[in-house]
Amino acid sequence: MDIIRRARLKEMDRTALEFMQSIEADRWIFKADLAVDRAHTRMLLENGIISEKDASLILEGLDQIEEAGIDALNLEEYEDIHACVESRLIELIGEDAGGRMHTARSRNDEVATCIRIALREELEKLIDKLNDLRRTILLRAEEHLETIMPGFTHLQFAQPTTLAHHLLAHFDALSRDLERLGGVYSRTNRSPLGAAAFASTSFPIDRRRTMELLGFEGLVENSMDAVSARDFLIEAISVSAIIMMHLSRLSEELILWSSQGFDMIELDDTVTSTSSIMPQKKNPDLAELIRAKTGTVNGALTAALTIMKAMPMSYNRDLQELTPHLIKAVTITAASVSGMERMIRSMKVKRDSMRSKLELGDLMATDLADALVREKGLPFRTAHKIVGKAVSEGYAIEELDEATLRDVLDPMLSVNKRKVTGGPAPEEVKRMIEQRKRELSLI
Amino acid sequence: MDIIRRARLKEMDRTALEFMQSIEADRWIFKADLAVDRAHTRMLLENGIISEKDASLILEGLDQIEEAGIDALNLEEYEDIHACVESRLIELIGEDAGGRMHTARSRNDEVATCIRIALREELEKLIDKLNDLRRTILLRAEEHLETIMPGFTHLQFAQPTTLAHHLLAHFDALSRDLERLGGVYSRTNRSPLGAAAFASTSFPIDRRRTMELLGFEGLVENSMDAVSARDFLIEAISVSAIIMMHLSRLSEELILWSSQGFDMIELDDTVTSTSSIMPQKKNPDLAELIRAKTGTVNGALTAALTIMKAMPMSYNRDLQELTPHLIKAVTITAASVSGMERMIRSMKVKRDSMRSKLELGDLMATDLADALVREKGLPFRTAHKIVGKAVSEGYAIEELDEATLRDVLDPMLSVNKRKVTGGPAPEEVKRMIEQRKRELSLI
Amino acid sequence: MDIIRRARLKEMDRTALEFMQSIEADRWIFKADLAVDRAHTRMLLENGIISEKDASLILEGLDQIEEAGIDALNLEEYEDIHACVESRLIELIGEDAGGRMHTARSRNDEVATCIRIALREELEKLIDKLNDLRRTILLRAEEHLETIMPGFTHLQFAQPTTLAHHLLAHFDALSRDLERLGGVYSRTNRSPLGAAAFASTSFPIDRRRTMELLGFEGLVENSMDAVSARDFLIEAISVSAIIMMHLSRLSEELILWSSQGFDMIELDDTVTSTSSIMPQKKNPDLAELIRAKTGTVNGALTAALTIMKAMPMSYNRDLQELTPHLIKAVTITAASVSGMERMIRSMKVKRDSMRSKLELGDLMATDLADALVREKGLPFRTAHKIVGKAVSEGYAIEELDEATLRDVLDPMLSVNKRKVTGGPAPEEVKRMIEQRKRELSLI
Amino acid sequence: MDIIRRARLKEMDRTALEFMQSIEADRWIFKADLAVDRAHTRMLLENGIISEKDASLILEGLDQIEEAGIDALNLEEYEDIHACVESRLIELIGEDAGGRMHTARSRNDEVATCIRIALREELEKLIDKLNDLRRTILLRAEEHLETIMPGFTHLQFAQPTTLAHHLLAHFDALSRDLERLGGVYSRTNRSPLGAAAFASTSFPIDRRRTMELLGFEGLVENSMDAVSARDFLIEAISVSAIIMMHLSRLSEELILWSSQGFDMIELDDTVTSTSSIMPQKKNPDLAELIRAKTGTVNGALTAALTIMKAMPMSYNRDLQELTPHLIKAVTITAASVSGMERMIRSMKVKRDSMRSKLELGDLMATDLADALVREKGLPFRTAHKIVGKAVSEGYAIEELDEATLRDVLDPMLSVNKRKVTGGPAPEEVKRMIEQRKRELSLI
Repeated sequence: MDIIRRARLKEMDRTALEFMQSIEADRWIFKADLAVDRAHTRMLLENGIISEKDASLILEGLDQIEEAGIDALNLEEYEDIHACVESRLIELIGEDAGGRMHTARSRNDEVATCIRIALREELEKLIDKLNDLRRTILLRAEEHLETIMPGFTHLQFAQPTTLAHHLLAHFDALSRDLERLGGVYSRTNRSPLGAAAFASTSFPIDRRRTMELLGFEGLVENSMDAVSARDFLIEAISVSAIIMMHLSRLSEELILWSSQGFDMIELDDTVTSTSSIMPQKKNPDLAELIRAKTGTVNGALTAALTIMKAMPMSYNRDLQELTPHLIKAVTITAASVSGMERMIRSMKVKRDSMRSKLELGDLMATDLADALVREKGLPFRTAHKIVGKAVSEGYAIEELDEATLRDVLDPMLSVNKRKVTGGPAPEEVKRMIEQRKRELSLI
Repeated sequence: MDIIRRARLKEMDRTALEFMQSIEADRWIFKADLAVDRAHTRMLLENGIISEKDASLILEGLDQIEEAGIDALNLEEYEDIHACVESRLIELIGEDAGGRMHTARSRNDEVATCIRIALREELEKLIDKLNDLRRTILLRAEEHLETIMPGFTHLQFAQPTTLAHHLLAHFDALSRDLERLGGVYSRTNRSPLGAAAFASTSFPIDRRRTMELLGFEGLVENSMDAVSARDFLIEAISVSAIIMMHLSRLSEELILWSSQGFDMIELDDTVTSTSSIMPQKKNPDLAELIRAKTGTVNGALTAALTIMKAMPMSYNRDLQELTPHLIKAVTITAASVSGMERMIRSMKVKRDSMRSKLELGDLMATDLADALVREKGLPFRTAHKIVGKAVSEGYAIEELDEATLRDVLDPMLSVNKRKVTGGPAPEEVKRMIEQRKRELSLI
Repeated sequence: MDIIRRARLKEMDRTALEFMQSIEADRWIFKADLAVDRAHTRMLLENGIISEKDASLILEGLDQIEEAGIDALNLEEYEDIHACVESRLIELIGEDAGGRMHTARSRNDEVATCIRIALREELEKLIDKLNDLRRTILLRAEEHLETIMPGFTHLQFAQPTTLAHHLLAHFDALSRDLERLGGVYSRTNRSPLGAAAFASTSFPIDRRRTMELLGFEGLVENSMDAVSARDFLIEAISVSAIIMMHLSRLSEELILWSSQGFDMIELDDTVTSTSSIMPQKKNPDLAELIRAKTGTVNGALTAALTIMKAMPMSYNRDLQELTPHLIKAVTITAASVSGMERMIRSMKVKRDSMRSKLELGDLMATDLADALVREKGLPFRTAHKIVGKAVSEGYAIEELDEATLRDVLDPMLSVNKRKVTGGPAPEEVKRMIEQRKRELSLI
Repeated sequence: MDIIRRARLKEMDRTALEFMQSIEADRWIFKADLAVDRAHTRMLLENGIISEKDASLILEGLDQIEEAGIDALNLEEYEDIHACVESRLIELIGEDAGGRMHTARSRNDEVATCIRIALREELEKLIDKLNDLRRTILLRAEEHLETIMPGFTHLQFAQPTTLAHHLLAHFDALSRDLERLGGVYSRTNRSPLGAAAFASTSFPIDRRRTMELLGFEGLVENSMDAVSARDFLIEAISVSAIIMMHLSRLSEELILWSSQGFDMIELDDTVTSTSSIMPQKKNPDLAELIRAKTGTVNGALTAALTIMKAMPMSYNRDLQELTPHLIKAVTITAASVSGMERMIRSMKVKRDSMRSKLELGDLMATDLADALVREKGLPFRTAHKIVGKAVSEGYAIEELDEATLRDVLDPMLSVNKRKVTGGPAPEEVKRMIEQRKRELSLI
């Protein structure tokens, strides 16, 4: 029987029990839970709250449970992993020792600690994958310093730029995502353990000791706050949502660029699919799914914020419902980052087709207007009007001589001239790439 | 090898494949998929597109696949259930017959049809459960026609009402949810089959025949619309979200009423839990989780709307990501409705404690003001001021004689007087209950 | 001084008052509020609750207030429009008559009634605009029965279709939106008036009479439900969100089709803008903003659902925060529908450019596979493989003779053959258009 | 006429123009826009791109525009504030000088810079208000070091704590919000100016100079990223949403505590309202509205994330739709923080009533179980069972003698014993308060 429930309640309705379980989250924190059990037990021993003998029995029991693995536990018979592990421990080593593990502790501080440990690990993985993607983008950019392409505004052809310059924009967006991940990591990596139900305990425990044993960098000090706080969790989802937003923008571009309309890249077979009816199709499914999963992570954020709205202190069972959204958000984001890395690494760039697009549209119009300013001293706004009319009504720009015009209308020359800080001129992009490679220890 | 992919693409990257699968949704539509395969095959035969012999082989093969069950399929080796079933069929009966099942069809219309069939079934379950809950609320209301309790505005005690009247408000809200479910059911129950990839087909198929065979009430006529439309799906999630909103309001009340502060009901052991540290606790976990799952369903809605934003026609792989959100929304809602039914059915009403609350606060103030209007001919706004001052400054209402005052201050008399249509007077509530019982065929 | 507040409370903090006001919503319901005041007054008179003289004074006072208009009221001095109008009325005609208008009523039922009246009007406008858009789409479709274009899946060229067929898909989606608007209209058009604070009243009012006077089709019967229910409001926002989802899909297509990559339409000058720096630009700003406003309406839905989560009965001030989201959702949706109508009506279709796209990609591959099935009796899956290999490896389809091939590869012939119900063949599309024109009374 | 549009487009449709404007956002950035114009003009002059004479004229013109104020501009005649200011400048000083201000610049980098400047100011205000609230909480906590109250889990009475300890939990949550605001501030405070449309410019501008002039701490370096990035904006909304989540939790507690059920505080008249029908009512409207506005800010976040999903580089008009959501989110959050400060500062704590609640429920059960562990050496889980049975079945705890029992059951003694780091014992809470006062420079 459930070791906690037996204290005063009859058996729970079976359907109610199922509704109230969260098996996926329990599996996610299984290892963290054992780590917390061990650290707590050690601390209880060191502070004379339990005996050496009981502590040894408990630690051995926990080892047995870990070795047997989570599948050996009848998780579906219990309210949660904590009740399940404690019940199993008591089966293994008896209540006289096993019944002491939960001294000076509640599931409230226990689960908060477990979530932080498991999230910490997911964030580390996500950071690694994000760095893989940044590295790949940087290396692909380096190959395309002079690969000229149309830059877009409003999805209309606008001005010529290079693929390197374009890719670097995505790189820099992801770099800010890393900054944000640093923030959420530091707010996650604090220990709530020792807060018990919310009111701490009268046993002489040492919260800093379990903090150290579990590798935390600080405490969530106030014990009411320690069990009630879930802002770190929402922050992790919101940072994930921002990363997905960035990936969805790049996905959209890959979809557009690989369509016959734009025809600027070809995605690799290994990341595309075909049609069950149209045998000629090569579809950018992976890019589409990353784009779609942005919605899924946004949904997780809405869910988490809605759940936490107006929750009074301290623990309410509602908090349990948050964890699956957290898991989903961070793991989908990590998988999407990897998927994007694979697409970028393997995509084939169609240089000639990219370049040929520059003939469609009037991408050199800004250069023309700028030339009128520079060569003829016209105010920019006047030059803008002259070129605008020329474009829509088709007459010539008589103000400029033919040689100047030829120069002005050369896309590569145009790009080369735009060498201000952050501009697309190859020399400037090269400088930016090198700076970023140093940052990633690639040189 | 994947029977579809072999046409032109190399093997997919294993991690990409996993990222792109949707096993849960595939399981959800497995039976629907076989039904669609059968209906399509029969129609092809009836219209002379495939031979009797091929049709028989296909139908036998499908029977074998169904008997073996979904676990006999290597779902994780394929892009989706459709590719998997077709590949298995070809293994069983050879390509010469099995390769004909997909004539005049695409996965695009196939999956749209499957989702509609599976959703139709979930909606039927949900409607049944909602009616169970309505029935239970009605029966509990009937027990409490004269159970007097404080009505709240702003969570402040406001005026006396009865538990029956209060419960009936929830009943009526759920009745509107049923109306909405009727709307989404009718928009779900239309057949997209025969649209093929989006452009229909040059084979002489009969879309109305598969429509009939699959029990649909109409067609999604335009073939581009047929494969692209997912509004029925978003509508199903949004109706679920409104139901959850209603359940969350009732859950909140159960949580409040069973807290020591209000102490008006006791939830049953079978739907509550205790604490791992505080042995006296009896926590309304089920109500809390229903409240929390409201956030989860809202999240599913945000996800689905975000995914569908700006999707160009016709099929895009993004659509696949919708289905898990749909499944989650409708099944969580159905389970929450059941959980609520269980709580309402088994809750113990503390009549005396409810009644005793009427002494706190000044719930009779409106009656006092009304009496001043009725007895003394004062304008209501003037009476409102007089009673307001009396309440805050404590002096007596001298305008009314003692006998009148005694009557006015009796909560049950007060309730009895409010017998206008929809009011809490027992005779009016009785009338409403009987009308609703007739509607539910309970009398 | 505030006529309601004077009863027991000191003046409110000025900043708090501003925070708590909702001027925009107050303006939106001003006319509805006067209508409710009048109907309530008439009913009070008819049922002998107030005298003929008092009723006349009140109705004259209300006329004066209406004539002076909302700008003549010091709205910012009051908690809300109801307190403001009542206070002004008392200023105009004295408390002895004016103080009687609020007999047997609360702001709770008053505001719920006002919102329903104002929303009803917005829904009528939205329905009209949606029908305008449907009409325009239908007429444009009729012009393009034979305008051949590439149909897309995954934004890849897939199979040829016609612009008429494509536009009709959007028409049919909007028709379902109309069905949904019908549902929300009927659930909005019910009267909560007479519920008072939530407990109805002991005065002998006649709720069906005010219902009739205000043009409602039914009652929200239970008085607790009447003031607490906001599901109609959330439903109105969610139906708006689905409409916006549909518009965003069409907007996305207009943006894509008018980009140089696809070059299939040109949007009119009156709905586009240019660049402050790039004079050649013609940007689809209106389409982009409709796409963006989809997010805004989704946001309104998230807001409304979050606000209503776990609201205990009956009125809570939180409900006030809903109304601005409702106003925003329905008015933005109506304006977006109009904007879309303007774009569709005025867009120039580039027939030749559309047709020329059919040479890119291998849009006839499905036709080839189908021909192999028809002419050679191959199973579809086998034909699919043969054509798939032909496309990717470039070898010829030897199975078909030259004349057959020529026929099979003609896009218009291909479209003509796809005449099953809902297909793109001009004769079938013509039939669908005529049926829909009849429905819209255009023929 | 619109100085930008005249280049190539006919007049815009009036309704379309209105739909496309964003007057509120234009007003919000008006001052920032003038600052950007000035800094850009100065930099152009310093780098020899415009003459001293032209620069002087421009700067004088800008001064005139600022003096006249935004209401002197016909904002509604223009697409946006940028076109409006430039047109007005040209009216004032002629095109020959005024037409040069826009050299080497686009509205794309201009508006991105303006938003960052205006947001920076809002964030500063928000940080100040958050510190005011923290200060007030700290001072109120200090008054209530020994004000004993029931602590809750699942809204059930759980264990005794103090009001100081409880308030400090909210303080610490808000401190993490401040950390997050620091992060978003640093990512906002970077200059995109000089990126022009996205491709930078061939004019020899100095981006670091305008950065300095405008008080930015760094650049958004890559010019494509500079105009496309809106992650800082979403981050600002998401941090606001987390703050609102925290405020909604505290609001909920104020609502609960001031209800007759709990009766632990009384909110001040200046932040409450009464009823139009029930004169006795004192409603926590301000707390309810803060709770509700949490939904509004969540809605802004959903909107912003939806809008940004799958936006290809670089500028798309959709970005304009983001800004009103940003403004709403940060200003509502700041006003809510102030509202909360007012409520906390002025609320009356009902010490006796709080203390009396400790007699309801069995809040000392954990102490009893702990005592059985300490005094009798029982394992905690065994003690938990014994006390659980005692609570539900009513028999005595025979294991403890009467004197021990008396001590164990004293709530203040119980609190005093819980002095571990972060616990509620007055000496520990005092230490925490002092540490936090030092941090806020209050001592």
